[in-house]
Amino acid sequence: MRRIGVVDTTFARVDMGGFAVDELKKTGTGFKVERRTVPGVKDLPVACKKMIEETGCDIVIALGMPGKEDIDKVCAHEASTGLIQVQLLTNRHIVEVFVHEDEAEDERQLAWLAEQRTREHAVNAVRLILYPKELEKDAGTGQRQGFEDAGPARR
Amino acid sequence: MRRIGVVDTTFARVDMGGFAVDELKKTGTGFKVERRTVPGVKDLPVACKKMIEETGCDIVIALGMPGKEDIDKVCAHEASTGLIQVQLLTNRHIVEVFVHEDEAEDERQLAWLAEQRTREHAVNAVRLILYPKELEKDAGTGQRQGFEDAGPARR
Amino acid sequence: MRRIGVVDTTFARVDMGGFAVDELKKTGTGFKVERRTVPGVKDLPVACKKMIEETGCDIVIALGMPGKEDIDKVCAHEASTGLIQVQLLTNRHIVEVFVHEDEAEDERQLAWLAEQRTREHAVNAVRLILYPKELEKDAGTGQRQGFEDAGPARR
Amino acid sequence: MRRIGVVDTTFARVDMGGFAVDELKKTGTGFKVERRTVPGVKDLPVACKKMIEETGCDIVIALGMPGKEDIDKVCAHEASTGLIQVQLLTNRHIVEVFVHEDEAEDERQLAWLAEQRTREHAVNAVRLILYPKELEKDAGTGQRQGFEDAGPARR
Amino acid sequence: MRRIGVVDTTFARVDMGGFAVDELKKTGTGFKVERRTVPGVKDLPVACKKMIEETGCDIVIALGMPGKEDIDKVCAHEASTGLIQVQLLTNRHIVEVFVHEDEAEDERQLAWLAEQRTREHAVNAVRLILYPKELEKDAGTGQRQGFEDAGPARR
Repeated sequence: MRRIGVVDTTFARVDMGGFAVDELKKTGTGFKVERRTVPGVKDLPVACKKMIEETGCDIVIALGMPGKEDIDKVCAHEASTGLIQVQLLTNRHIVEVFVHEDEAEDERQLAWLAEQRTREHAVNAVRLILYPKELEKDAGTGQRQGFEDAGPARR
Repeated sequence: MRRIGVVDTTFARVDMGGFAVDELKKTGTGFKVERRTVPGVKDLPVACKKMIEETGCDIVIALGMPGKEDIDKVCAHEASTGLIQVQLLTNRHIVEVFVHEDEAEDERQLAWLAEQRTREHAVNAVRLILYPKELEKDAGTGQRQGFEDAGPARR
Repeated sequence: MRRIGVVDTTFARVDMGGFAVDELKKTGTGFKVERRTVPGVKDLPVACKKMIEETGCDIVIALGMPGKEDIDKVCAHEASTGLIQVQLLTNRHIVEVFVHEDEAEDERQLAWLAEQRTREHAVNAVRLILYPKELEKDAGTGQRQGFEDAGPARR
Repeated sequence: MRRIGVVDTTFARVDMGGFAVDELKKTGTGFKVERRTVPGVKDLPVACKKMIEETGCDIVIALGMPGKEDIDKVCAHEASTGLIQVQLLTNRHIVEVFVHEDEAEDERQLAWLAEQRTREHAVNAVRLILYPKELEKDAGTGQRQGFEDAGPARR
Repeated sequence: MRRIGVVDTTFARVDMGGFAVDELKKTGTGFKVERRTVPGVKDLPVACKKMIEETGCDIVIALGMPGKEDIDKVCAHEASTGLIQVQLLTNRHIVEVFVHEDEAEDERQLAWLAEQRTREHAVNAVRLILYPKELEKDAGTGQRQGFEDAGPARR
């Protein structure tokens, strides 16, 4: 049976891990979900690596909510770089779902955005391991997760 | 028989993968094309690595269209860093074809640029694996992909 | 018996290592603490790697206090990148506790912040190796270390 | 017999590879020169790695001419990071010779600078593998390649 | 017998390598010093790696003097990142001693600063391999190399 890992943080201000688990349950069957929580985004890389190696996950959803300060942007960059390294070390996709606090106008929108982006990327994770041809159908169509799609560039 | 991989994204607003496949068919024979689509540019590194290892590709064309925000620039940088790592891990060239949304003045030019750069780099990919001496003839001549060539510096 | 490593610097202006050791003693039993001090944050990655490999630590707390100049920010970034690499090489968490000098308004607040953040992250380190479910209970609740928690985003 | 690799790009606006080969011929004997050309600087890392592994080069001169836009600076940084990684993977020096388009006031100076810096670094490459003690004699003397030397700091 | 490596550059405007060797001789006995010079800071990582592997050094002092331009800052960052990687690959400390040209007000101060920082870090290198407990005594005391110490933060 396929396994999907979900790793989130206590730093995030929305229970993104909860939404990911919920969406995965809705999206399909045939896979088992593993969950782990770490303090912040910089703890995600090794947590995802251990999740893959210890549970045999086929893919991981890494969830985080970087703050609005410059230092938070740097932390997010370091975390992302680490997540890419883990993918290369394990040959597994890690779907990174980061919502930056300053992407939203207020707390209400932040909560909505974090849920929406998490749910859409949970679907992407399922497609990556089970239905890759569905992604190919959407190639170059300007898909976004959370806010509305950019759509294809009109010629 | 040689194999060329094409990996693109659903985030891009132009079907760059389609243009790459089309150009490769026009450019030559003697190779087979493999295609894969992922959500965004940060998913490209591991997808290219898996493409190389699972299909035995000799080279991969990695296509993406980063957005115009600061965060998009950072994502593109992380993706590029990962793509270079994959090349070093696999000893295969990956021709990165990124078109930044803010390189174009409007959607129409964006669509044109994405197609043009993709097609020119598809030719580069074929040269890298089949006709490396053709690249040497163009050494130092200010070649560009998409917009017009810069040309050699006049003395 | 579990082992927790503590590595700090002579560059820091607060004895963060001392606070970490003290908090670990208060927090629990069943683990042994190893300590090491290096000149600056860029010396932390290899020191943490050697600590893990030579003492068999289950986790390390890496403590540093980057200065306020641009160059200090770059050093901190390089150190953080290295610390993530060490985690991936060793499959061990390293809890990075960096306090930037310009986070505080004056020396007094700096001393308070460094102690407070160190103590809270020492607890996180214990949770990561002994009580991971406690972290999951706090998922998405906007936890911060040092200054007050951001809390969950209200909907 | 020693081998020196020369890798340049079609993106550059000056035939830096040609000048490197010419200078190497003037500088000495006892080594063979291998040449390869790739599209841009981001293709240099894997090309240098393959050059070293496939031809047994003792050292490589990597030549590139990044453009003047912000994105070009980022590409150059990614390429440089990759070139350092290749050196660590192969235990071979790679002498990076990058000339940024905006270092020169006009095309004429650009052409001069690219030739001059390439020639001076070709000599450095020979020294690194054959005459390391000559470099030690110049330690701390403010050597520059292309524009005039900064010279030692007067006390 | 312990070995300490010293690697510096011809780019630097002060003979930092010479000062390092001199200070090491004053500081203690029981170790042998190896020296190597390379063109610039980006050549330091592989030079340090080869020094460690070829001479069996227990630690290396890597000396450089980045210029004042933006591009020099980027080169220094790339070099530092590489030096951290070498440490992780070899399990050896590399004490990085970089003096940025714009840290000093004039050439005279630059020369003084480069000597002073080099000497203080040479002592740190000896402590790291021979007297690690001396570093622990200075933990959190705001040590600086070159300019005066920041000292501990007053509460």
